[in-house]
Amino acid sequence: MRSYTDYLTFETKKRRDYVNITGRVSDAVAASGIAEGLCHVSAMHITAGVYVNDDESGFRADLTALLERLAPEGADYRHHQTGEDNGEAHLRNMMVGHQVVLPVTEGALDLGPWEQVFYAEFDGQRRKRVVIKIIGE
Amino acid sequence: MRSYTDYLTFETKKRRDYVNITGRVSDAVAASGIAEGLCHVSAMHITAGVYVNDDESGFRADLTALLERLAPEGADYRHHQTGEDNGEAHLRNMMVGHQVVLPVTEGALDLGPWEQVFYAEFDGQRRKRVVIKIIGE
Amino acid sequence: MRSYTDYLTFETKKRRDYVNITGRVSDAVAASGIAEGLCHVSAMHITAGVYVNDDESGFRADLTALLERLAPEGADYRHHQTGEDNGEAHLRNMMVGHQVVLPVTEGALDLGPWEQVFYAEFDGQRRKRVVIKIIGE
Repeated sequence: MRSYTDYLTFETKKRRDYVNITGRVSDAVAASGIAEGLCHVSAMHITAGVYVNDDESGFRADLTALLERLAPEGADYRHHQTGEDNGEAHLRNMMVGHQVVLPVTEGALDLGPWEQVFYAEFDGQRRKRVVIKIIGE
Repeated sequence: MRSYTDYLTFETKKRRDYVNITGRVSDAVAASGIAEGLCHVSAMHITAGVYVNDDESGFRADLTALLERLAPEGADYRHHQTGEDNGEAHLRNMMVGHQVVLPVTEGALDLGPWEQVFYAEFDGQRRKRVVIKIIGE
Repeated sequence: MRSYTDYLTFETKKRRDYVNITGRVSDAVAASGIAEGLCHVSAMHITAGVYVNDDESGFRADLTALLERLAPEGADYRHHQTGEDNGEAHLRNMMVGHQVVLPVTEGALDLGPWEQVFYAEFDGQRRKRVVIKIIGE
């Protein structure tokens, strides 16, 4: 069995952003030399997520609108009693998910035609990390 | 280490449907010959999901009602400016999730008594696929 | 390749509760002897979840409030026609997710500074289980 670990770093200019990381994850799969296995990708922070969906700006606007309805920015969160101001970012992480697992087949990510891997930043403007862990043979 | 890959195909008659795929995933585990490992199951399309829950029609009606509140069909989605009409299906994929990972123990899915694996179609009536990737020994 | 399987049992005093299981999952990783791999943790019941987020009581109150808005306790769920009274617990499981996959690096969970693993009980006061399955080398 082989394993391969890599870390991506992000420091978005905006508080919220979506970053297509499909190419960087594919590069990690290629570097791993693993032909058949599983590729785990997760945000190492609790105010960011990783998801798979379409790379289409209208969809991203719809997602942001849904998350704003579910967990509006600036609402009176209990979490803010700690001095933090990112209560909505924690809840958006819970709704979107902080990780995905992707199949690796014949040395490449085994994704459908429209599947793209995204990093979703909900509380950016500071350095944050994603871990990629690939295991297989 | 062993690996095993299989693909399921679906073409639901309705735009939205839920299909119990526990038996088909179990068949893949048996065919893999893997006794201890992990079984990944994911929709290869961004308007369908895979989840684990009860095989009970009332629960499915409750889930549909919740998803209709979160992402109503026919709303004025930004994604529709591309000419698509399935904005709600993309958002339901985000809420339900497009993948699950299931433990394999002693050659079988290691599920609790009521856990069943479902394919959730949110924009059907055309050919779509699910990938199963099992790794272990 | 090595694999390791463990089960945690819970019987919460309250109908709903959150339990930090990071230490118990870390213990399983140590017991496995696996240095590089993936650690799967899932609720074996369809009315409980497993998630990663901050160990902060205000966040947990915010999460409960969000889930109460999405799937209120005591609403008139179709699932209740079966005689059950836990329709909201099934839906909360769907929103939070029943499983996580965690990377294992150099013999330990490869988590970010604030990431903690939680068991979320939505219908407790009875014996329930979580399965941990670690594979790697």
